[in-house]
Amino acid sequence: MRGAHALLHTLVDGGVDVCFANPGTSEMHFVAALDGVPTMRPVLTLFEGVATGAADGYGRMTGRPASVLLHLGPGLGNGLANLHNARRAGTPVVTVVGDHSTAHKVHDAPLDSDIDSVAGTVSRWVRRSATAADVGPDTAAAVAAALGPPAGIATLILPADASWDDGAAPATVESEPGLAAGRGALDADALEAAAKALTGGERCVLLIGGDGATADGARAAARIAAATGATLLAETFPARSERGGGLPAVARLSYVATTAHRQLEGAAHVVLAGARSPVAFFGYPGRSGDLLPEGADVVTVAPKYGPAATALAALADLVAPGTEAPAGPHGRPELPTGELTGASASAVIGALLPDGAIVVDEANTSGVGLGQATAGGPRHDWLTLPGGAIGYGLPAAAGAAVACPDRPVWCLAADGASMYTISALWTHAREGLDVTTVVYNNAAYAVLRAELAQVGAEFTGDGSGAVARRLLDLDDPTLDFVRIAEGMGVPARRARTAEELADALRAAAAEPGPHLVEAVVPPVVR
Amino acid sequence: MRGAHALLHTLVDGGVDVCFANPGTSEMHFVAALDGVPTMRPVLTLFEGVATGAADGYGRMTGRPASVLLHLGPGLGNGLANLHNARRAGTPVVTVVGDHSTAHKVHDAPLDSDIDSVAGTVSRWVRRSATAADVGPDTAAAVAAALGPPAGIATLILPADASWDDGAAPATVESEPGLAAGRGALDADALEAAAKALTGGERCVLLIGGDGATADGARAAARIAAATGATLLAETFPARSERGGGLPAVARLSYVATTAHRQLEGAAHVVLAGARSPVAFFGYPGRSGDLLPEGADVVTVAPKYGPAATALAALADLVAPGTEAPAGPHGRPELPTGELTGASASAVIGALLPDGAIVVDEANTSGVGLGQATAGGPRHDWLTLPGGAIGYGLPAAAGAAVACPDRPVWCLAADGASMYTISALWTHAREGLDVTTVVYNNAAYAVLRAELAQVGAEFTGDGSGAVARRLLDLDDPTLDFVRIAEGMGVPARRARTAEELADALRAAAAEPGPHLVEAVVPPVVR
Repeated sequence: MRGAHALLHTLVDGGVDVCFANPGTSEMHFVAALDGVPTMRPVLTLFEGVATGAADGYGRMTGRPASVLLHLGPGLGNGLANLHNARRAGTPVVTVVGDHSTAHKVHDAPLDSDIDSVAGTVSRWVRRSATAADVGPDTAAAVAAALGPPAGIATLILPADASWDDGAAPATVESEPGLAAGRGALDADALEAAAKALTGGERCVLLIGGDGATADGARAAARIAAATGATLLAETFPARSERGGGLPAVARLSYVATTAHRQLEGAAHVVLAGARSPVAFFGYPGRSGDLLPEGADVVTVAPKYGPAATALAALADLVAPGTEAPAGPHGRPELPTGELTGASASAVIGALLPDGAIVVDEANTSGVGLGQATAGGPRHDWLTLPGGAIGYGLPAAAGAAVACPDRPVWCLAADGASMYTISALWTHAREGLDVTTVVYNNAAYAVLRAELAQVGAEFTGDGSGAVARRLLDLDDPTLDFVRIAEGMGVPARRARTAEELADALRAAAAEPGPHLVEAVVPPVVR
Repeated sequence: MRGAHALLHTLVDGGVDVCFANPGTSEMHFVAALDGVPTMRPVLTLFEGVATGAADGYGRMTGRPASVLLHLGPGLGNGLANLHNARRAGTPVVTVVGDHSTAHKVHDAPLDSDIDSVAGTVSRWVRRSATAADVGPDTAAAVAAALGPPAGIATLILPADASWDDGAAPATVESEPGLAAGRGALDADALEAAAKALTGGERCVLLIGGDGATADGARAAARIAAATGATLLAETFPARSERGGGLPAVARLSYVATTAHRQLEGAAHVVLAGARSPVAFFGYPGRSGDLLPEGADVVTVAPKYGPAATALAALADLVAPGTEAPAGPHGRPELPTGELTGASASAVIGALLPDGAIVVDEANTSGVGLGQATAGGPRHDWLTLPGGAIGYGLPAAAGAAVACPDRPVWCLAADGASMYTISALWTHAREGLDVTTVVYNNAAYAVLRAELAQVGAEFTGDGSGAVARRLLDLDDPTLDFVRIAEGMGVPARRARTAEELADALRAAAAEPGPHLVEAVVPPVVR
């Protein structure tokens, strides 16, 4: 058996049955082998960043890795930003990077580069298969490494000859190919210390992340907060939160450092479950990036990427044995009318969000009030951007839709961010994915306007900052996302009023397959 | 003075007065400082791969580095593939990667990653400025490193505090900020050995690359070939060739390894001027990737990225003192009629190519006969893809147009390749660049169809290869580049016949600013 066949069989037998691919010559044996393994679903993307972002969305929704097929070092480079995001999300991913054949490596051919060094910056596990015979065992080890615990990115570098040579055989994955998250041993001492802190009468913050933001985790956390009076917060950008349908609403630590400071102020203890000690997204002149209140102590009942939900359940048993989870909010916003703004768009989305939806949130500054507008709606999942590298939304939506074909996916994407990986729309169309994308067109990198003010930069020259501001504007020309989407095979319309947005979302919901709505909104920051 | 100001002044004083940028928070002081340094031209791109590809095109046309401003590790990742191409082209580029402030690095904030390791894979020179006081000298060293010789990529990693702190001053670049290419000492022994080989009566191949493909290099090489009977070839993908206007036509070593073998067959000596010993682009089962004929010896008069044009001139003085450069071809193809094919599109392009054009060639399989169709036309430059990472065309065209505002740029791009960095069209529009893009829409990764046959992969399953082929097709849905271009502010039309392509190119030439023509062609490989 050729190495490429062993690779495919090992993946599928190990529960990895989706491959987001952007292949090249060095991956042709993998491509050819797909016909013999119909249980593997290949999904073509037009850019590697779409493939890696899709694997992130898929892995977050299933807890199982998808495989990603990349073409040499440049393909890995193109996929790197969304692998960074997957790394920060703790998503299991098996990355397969094709390389030149072993004999060809000595020639330093045009596409040759140092794949191993680049892969090492995002992967928990990197291996280069030496021969076809190694491919089966190496693939099995890659799947096991991706599953963890903790889950993460495993990168297998596959020389073309290891792929095309005979002498390979599939291998068995030495790991439970089930849900990757939430596994790992609990720390009894930490649970006791947390219980003591929470019941000691001083102000406590319970900060949850990872699978602590799932339904079970959120319920347990809400019980703890109700019983002890602790302030319950989720990390700023959770990989996946289960929300709505009566689940407790969990506020998130603000991205804005000054607001986050206020949320944490006065806490004597911070209990962490699947989250890290809070830090600012960026450093600013003269301000500390450490958001931990001075003198506060930290108790970690589950580390980042650890078993947060089970730790929260155990902690709730200790401090809230008789306390029920408080009922979450119920009720949707009224459908607003009139000119569209970020806030009124949020109300429309809250009013119409379908039951069981998966929301991929890359709305950035335009997503004003989205959390509140949707908390009382039907049960749904909410994905955000733990790694901060924009361009994850449209790809992750593709992956979530492949993972959960029976659920509607709503992708809320800022204009600037969506342009990074806009070709994901073609994959939405190719695969007939039930993704409704709302692109907020405010014709600006509005978040950077805010950051420009934050960092205390002053303008020289005529003092107007006109040159600088032009680097943060997306007008001149204004992007027309309706045409762009139609050009990639996704039906699209534009909404300038709340009514038009509501109509467009209803029309999208009435028809299977992908849709795009360009929501024209004013920028939040002028 | 703040570090950001010292950076800008040092760049501009050192002759680096264009910055292709995709900034983020950590680069806001750089952005703010732009207002005080109006001699620096900032060019906004919507994706980092556009910025790096533009810097490649700019550097190839000017011999001077542009600067590229990237946002942390993910921004560098997004720009990596086109930096790979620039590295292989030997293009001078100064890459500035903003990083978290030094104090913030300890927090491992969401966007933190190992920038240094990734940068090292594409850069000749990498440095991380420790303080604001270092920024001036470090920037000057970066510019000098980019200029070489040999020219290449210099990457300066700039912590936000080094950028925002005071105490910096501009520094002077210790290098001639002139043409980077073509400098370096000649090797007299190698020249003598080459002369001996060329005049010894055995079959010789003279393989040129780098600045050997400029007008002076090509003329000298053609004199050598005329006087000695040597076979003159250019490397497969020269970074920049000067062609037309009576310059000698230089055939290129074929990308197809079997054809390249035939071109080199029987050579006893291969003389290299700015090229490396010939190797295949990819390795294939059972075939050597080394294209050097068995027993042939190699004489290198100028190494890859070395002073090829001056070496060729010196060699011509030795072996062809009385020989004039033979006249190159003259005359354009007739304008063809009827349904468009890759070949007839090439004839249309050859018939209409404007005097002084810069052609950015990423036509891939659709560019059938382009070289021949244009060799006898007016004087022009031709850029190809030495690094092989597709997605360079539209960005490099932007950079070439910024470098040479008075020259028309024709960007010939394959459909699959153009989708990698399609947002470059927005930059064409934003900057009003005189770029006419022809996208060949054959609805396939046609080159991969050929490669699938080359690698000897066989299909299992039902043997039809239907699953594999679907990964190489770009239909279902077919991309509509007219809408995509219009959505990004570039006027566009579609051509299905040779007449329509000619009309569209004439209309584009009659109006300043960017245009796109979608050329619908059948795939060369079915």
